[in-house]
Amino acid sequence: MHQLSQEMKSCIEECLRCYQVCLGTAMTHCIEVGGKHTEPQHFRLMMDCVAVCQLAAELMSHKSQFHRQTCALCVEICEVCAHDCEALMGMEECVAACRSCAEACRAMV
Amino acid sequence: MHQLSQEMKSCIEECLRCYQVCLGTAMTHCIEVGGKHTEPQHFRLMMDCVAVCQLAAELMSHKSQFHRQTCALCVEICEVCAHDCEALMGMEECVAACRSCAEACRAMV
Amino acid sequence: MHQLSQEMKSCIEECLRCYQVCLGTAMTHCIEVGGKHTEPQHFRLMMDCVAVCQLAAELMSHKSQFHRQTCALCVEICEVCAHDCEALMGMEECVAACRSCAEACRAMV
Amino acid sequence: MHQLSQEMKSCIEECLRCYQVCLGTAMTHCIEVGGKHTEPQHFRLMMDCVAVCQLAAELMSHKSQFHRQTCALCVEICEVCAHDCEALMGMEECVAACRSCAEACRAMV
Repeated sequence: MHQLSQEMKSCIEECLRCYQVCLGTAMTHCIEVGGKHTEPQHFRLMMDCVAVCQLAAELMSHKSQFHRQTCALCVEICEVCAHDCEALMGMEECVAACRSCAEACRAMV
Repeated sequence: MHQLSQEMKSCIEECLRCYQVCLGTAMTHCIEVGGKHTEPQHFRLMMDCVAVCQLAAELMSHKSQFHRQTCALCVEICEVCAHDCEALMGMEECVAACRSCAEACRAMV
Repeated sequence: MHQLSQEMKSCIEECLRCYQVCLGTAMTHCIEVGGKHTEPQHFRLMMDCVAVCQLAAELMSHKSQFHRQTCALCVEICEVCAHDCEALMGMEECVAACRSCAEACRAMV
Repeated sequence: MHQLSQEMKSCIEECLRCYQVCLGTAMTHCIEVGGKHTEPQHFRLMMDCVAVCQLAAELMSHKSQFHRQTCALCVEICEVCAHDCEALMGMEECVAACRSCAEACRAMV
């Protein structure tokens, strides 16, 4: 009765996976490779994606009445981030995590 | 050149003030008083507000291209939280912080 | 070369799992059941655990020079939280997540 | 009775100020200037500082039994960050915020 639905738990896991992959990639691969990987527009997008994925996971864990709006914002940022990462080397894992997270969040909206 | 505008800095401060007041009130006053203060709907709203204020502060600090959408979500949650807190005893500081944060965020949208 | 070790990735996953289980349980089971589940000392411990697990996951994702100290703090809080949750009904998943996270973090210290 | 002490409120404000200054500087000044400002060791330290300041503010807002250990970790990271920022151009505000936060947290330990 008190539990979150299985669908919502899976979506929380996708958000935390995207959080982990994007933060880990930004702070290791991007910051070590530099160049286009640390251009402000790209790096900010990575960190925006990290932050919104964490918020979406948090509000879903709250059984929040605002999870739809939050997931919608997460979809928007993840899709822009995925598209931006595709243009750079070694970002395949980020692209996949963003796409997968966006798809799971879209199902919650 | 690299700096955030003064208006954005003020808005970040309002968000962090609302984060601090709502989190501090939820985890001291609400949890100690109990009753209506820990009813799931109210308590979740407080914690949603804490989380979205932190996200808004974070994305503005990033000079994020998504700060408008994030501030809009923050306005929505802060206003519902302010309204909900008005019905309970001892929540005046939360009501004021939510209203002030909503007003500052609305100016950024 | 830029990657995190497999051991550290597993530890990040344990921290995020504990974050998710403790936050989800606090904001659904605990807040809905009330009584001992929302006693300030217990509820704060749950939320402390959520916060320190997120910090540990974040600093490990940064390849931070401070991951040992952070994991040590995470071990301490998770163990107290596991012990506290054992005394309450329906907290088995939290106990297991806290124990597992503490064990993974202890290996990083 | 339910309130945080004035000293703790001031320390929370110092932590949130350091969070805001370091995050804002990292994501605008550092990422736009590049060079030594985005060297992995420096940039990670900035982001570690942001994360630990937020944790310290959060646990103090919880009236957590672990605020001493958390503030001690915050002192350690803020001092290393202040020292590291001193060697770079345009980081005076970060140095001051880290020093001030470390001093306030040391008084809580």
